[in-house]
Amino acid sequence: MELVTITDIEAAAERVRGVAVRTPLVLQTWDPRGTLWLKPESLQPIGAFKVRGAFNAIATLDDDRRARGVIAYSSGNHAQAVAYAAQRFGVPAVIVVPDIAPRIKVEATRSYGAEVIEVPIGDHEAKAHELAAERGLTLVAPFDDAAIIAGQGTAGLEIAEDLPDVEVVLVPVSGGGLAAGVGTAIKARCPRARVIGVEPALAADTAEGLRLGRRVDWPMADRARTIADGLRAQPSELTFAHLRKVVDDMVTVTEDEIRAAMRTLATKARLVAEPSGAVTTAAYLNHAAELPEGRTVAIVSGGNADPALFAEVLA
Amino acid sequence: MELVTITDIEAAAERVRGVAVRTPLVLQTWDPRGTLWLKPESLQPIGAFKVRGAFNAIATLDDDRRARGVIAYSSGNHAQAVAYAAQRFGVPAVIVVPDIAPRIKVEATRSYGAEVIEVPIGDHEAKAHELAAERGLTLVAPFDDAAIIAGQGTAGLEIAEDLPDVEVVLVPVSGGGLAAGVGTAIKARCPRARVIGVEPALAADTAEGLRLGRRVDWPMADRARTIADGLRAQPSELTFAHLRKVVDDMVTVTEDEIRAAMRTLATKARLVAEPSGAVTTAAYLNHAAELPEGRTVAIVSGGNADPALFAEVLA
Repeated sequence: MELVTITDIEAAAERVRGVAVRTPLVLQTWDPRGTLWLKPESLQPIGAFKVRGAFNAIATLDDDRRARGVIAYSSGNHAQAVAYAAQRFGVPAVIVVPDIAPRIKVEATRSYGAEVIEVPIGDHEAKAHELAAERGLTLVAPFDDAAIIAGQGTAGLEIAEDLPDVEVVLVPVSGGGLAAGVGTAIKARCPRARVIGVEPALAADTAEGLRLGRRVDWPMADRARTIADGLRAQPSELTFAHLRKVVDDMVTVTEDEIRAAMRTLATKARLVAEPSGAVTTAAYLNHAAELPEGRTVAIVSGGNADPALFAEVLA
Repeated sequence: MELVTITDIEAAAERVRGVAVRTPLVLQTWDPRGTLWLKPESLQPIGAFKVRGAFNAIATLDDDRRARGVIAYSSGNHAQAVAYAAQRFGVPAVIVVPDIAPRIKVEATRSYGAEVIEVPIGDHEAKAHELAAERGLTLVAPFDDAAIIAGQGTAGLEIAEDLPDVEVVLVPVSGGGLAAGVGTAIKARCPRARVIGVEPALAADTAEGLRLGRRVDWPMADRARTIADGLRAQPSELTFAHLRKVVDDMVTVTEDEIRAAMRTLATKARLVAEPSGAVTTAAYLNHAAELPEGRTVAIVSGGNADPALFAEVLA
């Protein structure tokens, strides 16, 4: 299987320049250890790193295919990222969402000019494939795609540029696109740094899978228990092959740790993080004994927190 | 009266490099006008732009004076900024705070190694002067100081570098240090841009003062009505002279507009803004008719919002 290379990620960085925000690394001066830098991907357009991969994937299509338009299935940040990236290119986007998706996310996706099609939960993947064939649209996968992995990897390239002597990079793991891309960039540019994946204990399929050396399948009903709704997916063959190569270790965090980290990020770092975006900070603050010491970057992957949940963790 | 120049601000930028975060300009893609960039100074160490001026002021002291230590009176962000900057230089800092200051702010100031002295409200300025004389400490003023103005101006320099064709810069006005410095930088580098100061209507002494062409004094009891606790000060002769020269117009916002802007910043920009940091966004969203059109930067000056207030505006 062909893996994404640092050259692919460098090419992606050229493409996403001016579209993805070059998010700063922010040293956290309140941290007594003094070794925590946050990378707030929550500041991206649509509020998550996903815009990097989506834009790169659409950018690498040939002109004819791109002009016909793109399609994605998602109820989360990938939906908005594809809608936004397609709008930047001025090409049509169709997003298939489960009809239980929060209205606010559906409206946000629509606001970027996408056609949103709501279907019963469970049908949305099949419906997307059907529409893609019918209308000649290109499916933009959420993570199982080399161009997506390379796009997400641009966040890792920026870490290597801004803190070349980084020692630990904490990255959330769900479908594995972000961890695959960031890990590839870090291993190429900062070979001494350790790349640690973070999962909720309630959706720790990758921690188990890497331990066993093969992908494992956790029932969706199990994975759905975590409040980190962005971390309920599982790696594909492609992303898992990357993770085996570039992730040194996995750490899992509890739901209480995630909520506490959201509060810390709000009050100490002044960032709105969604639960998935808070897991890396949760790992740093609660699992020091399991982590290598040293200059640590925690990727805050997204900030699309439900306002009611956010108010609750602050109270 | 000698005013701060762009050369002073450029020199300050060299000094604060690596201490102040080079905050990005973040285009807000949810805004239908598509002309709003935020500059999140809330991401600075201590959560506000104040670290720029405090660090520059301490950096410009001669070595002997600096080594003897610094003193400041403040219950707000300036206290933490001076404590943090002194810690970076490894010199003593004394912060005099009114004994009604929130515990959380006192603890934060102490966490940067400062000696915190609590005195009855109203006595803290006199006590600071007394201690400065007694112990040979240098008083770091919150805004009435050329080095502070030059330091705050580095935020304006970054705006000019990142968006050279900026058309409107919205900046909160309280003591006027930030507006004076940012306005000076913008007028030097982007002479066609308009610099607009923003105040709460409940503490609009500068809007009135600039209209009349002279400083006016609003009773503290009036200014204390606004929830924007960082915007209750009034310009000094020095900052007012800058504001007359570099501020093109003033806009005032209501308390409801400030709260709504805090919510918008949290949900759309994923930023925790304190009320003072939200006034510029409030102006952009609610006072378009009073503002020039075009590419607009709103400075989000700080993020030290009280968690209970923040939870309340989100609910």
